[in-house]
Amino acid sequence: MKEFELIKHFFREQAVKRKDVVLGIGDDCALLLPPERQHIAVTTDTLVAGVHFPLQTEARAIGHKSVAVSLSDLGAMGAEPTWISLALTIPEVDEAWLSEFCAGVFELCEFYNVQLVGGDTTQGPLSITVTAQGLTPFDKHISRSGAKAGDWVYVTGELGDAALALKLLQGKVVVDDVYKAQMLTKLNYPKPKVLVGQSLREYASSAIDLSDGLISDLRHICQASNVGANIVLDDLPISPTLNDTLGKENAIELALTGGDDYELLFTVSEDNKVGMETALTHAGTKVSCIGQLNGSDKITTTMDNKPVQISANGYEHFTKKNV
Amino acid sequence: MKEFELIKHFFREQAVKRKDVVLGIGDDCALLLPPERQHIAVTTDTLVAGVHFPLQTEARAIGHKSVAVSLSDLGAMGAEPTWISLALTIPEVDEAWLSEFCAGVFELCEFYNVQLVGGDTTQGPLSITVTAQGLTPFDKHISRSGAKAGDWVYVTGELGDAALALKLLQGKVVVDDVYKAQMLTKLNYPKPKVLVGQSLREYASSAIDLSDGLISDLRHICQASNVGANIVLDDLPISPTLNDTLGKENAIELALTGGDDYELLFTVSEDNKVGMETALTHAGTKVSCIGQLNGSDKITTTMDNKPVQISANGYEHFTKKNV
Repeated sequence: MKEFELIKHFFREQAVKRKDVVLGIGDDCALLLPPERQHIAVTTDTLVAGVHFPLQTEARAIGHKSVAVSLSDLGAMGAEPTWISLALTIPEVDEAWLSEFCAGVFELCEFYNVQLVGGDTTQGPLSITVTAQGLTPFDKHISRSGAKAGDWVYVTGELGDAALALKLLQGKVVVDDVYKAQMLTKLNYPKPKVLVGQSLREYASSAIDLSDGLISDLRHICQASNVGANIVLDDLPISPTLNDTLGKENAIELALTGGDDYELLFTVSEDNKVGMETALTHAGTKVSCIGQLNGSDKITTTMDNKPVQISANGYEHFTKKNV
Repeated sequence: MKEFELIKHFFREQAVKRKDVVLGIGDDCALLLPPERQHIAVTTDTLVAGVHFPLQTEARAIGHKSVAVSLSDLGAMGAEPTWISLALTIPEVDEAWLSEFCAGVFELCEFYNVQLVGGDTTQGPLSITVTAQGLTPFDKHISRSGAKAGDWVYVTGELGDAALALKLLQGKVVVDDVYKAQMLTKLNYPKPKVLVGQSLREYASSAIDLSDGLISDLRHICQASNVGANIVLDDLPISPTLNDTLGKENAIELALTGGDDYELLFTVSEDNKVGMETALTHAGTKVSCIGQLNGSDKITTTMDNKPVQISANGYEHFTKKNV
């Protein structure tokens, strides 16, 4: 099967047809018509087989995750996703695999009304690069650099479950099959916090999505905003499964350093605290206050009101073992 | 060296600072401020080591070509390039290599006032995906689908030299060192026809850039525009080096089927022929009329006014041997 037939067959069958896409897939470029008085947010992420997902990961999950990680970045910016470009490098043309991969891509695109507007399909070791774009009203985006000393530190959802799933896949720990399936879903089908991010435009002073691990990602906010932080380990949202499987201490370490959660980490001023909690709770989103920013240049942690040391630095691609 | 340090060190040192980039590299997303009454053109291309360029290609050429192939697509659309995102997958962190790679990327970005606004650096087999964006005034873009029977078929520059360079690298042919260097420059440092493309907005009925080979790319225009074409082989622009090295017949075959020229193939109505030729000749661009579109559904070729058969289909990634 020729490259061009391949693209035509699998990537043109999408349900989403946005009015702001003047020309979609099939020419030298796509043509978009951005609305007036909006910023365009752009983000690019690459997933490499064996580095960012285990080699045996199912095709639909790879498709889902390829899009989810980029939409997660848009969510952290408070942007509404609109268009994606997808570059797929595959070792060979496997129609069943491609069909499942595309199903994973398009399920997420349809949910968020995102149109695939272009890409490239090439032969080589499996990897996927997605460039996703979205819109934010003028001066309504959330950056990493707006946090102030005194702001409260929040996360959505629960932390460490994706990292636990990786340990399960690696055979390092064992849980009941029911819980294993739940954890694997968190690893393979992360839900980007897109709508939460848009809600946070009115409240958050900064935000980042949790891809590398809490401490590592919090450090990005602290460096960009020139603040320090103290994290109250007692308040970390840890699932019963993670707690029961690893015990409290190891569960906390994984919540601090495990990657791939794709929850949002954000900061809120004292004045916006109640408004934000009310808005997000009404929307059914679980949020936890896990600490506070300060004027230092360090990230510290406490438990039972006493300082504790953290040793790990969080997930770093170039120091991480392949999975 | 950690992933984040790597990105900071090599990719933030760019000279181009566009006013329409509200937030550049370093947050979850870049933020762009598109002008009013313009379309955004978007294109994505992946280059895989050993497939799209020989493994021994110098880093600066890889950087140059990664950007050039995407700018070439923008040129074919008549768009003015503005922003790129670059996803780089590398087997290991080699500072000298990265420095040269970035030099190749930024030389081209500076020439066209294009700002790198984001990307990702990951570990894996060497490949590069660039998503490039540009602007066209409303209803002034050139698509593949606007060609009409009777329109004339043109190409810029000369054809087949990049494919000859590949044969030189593979040791299949031999030329003098002076000519070898010239051919290798055409392969490794293609000049995207960005300004030519913008000039053609007023004249061309369709355009495509020559990445896969003349016949293969012409077929895309014919299919999109529902026309056929006859190509006059006597009129193909072939360099003396290519002609002298391979002989007339093989030179023509390479001009028809060799990839990587990154010249523009475009069509012009009878009414626009003189205006286009005058405008492009004044701009110092070589253009050659190589045939005419017709109402058939075929691409035919003639030489000395007689029909001749062509056997090859042009460059297709999935049928091409690795280089």
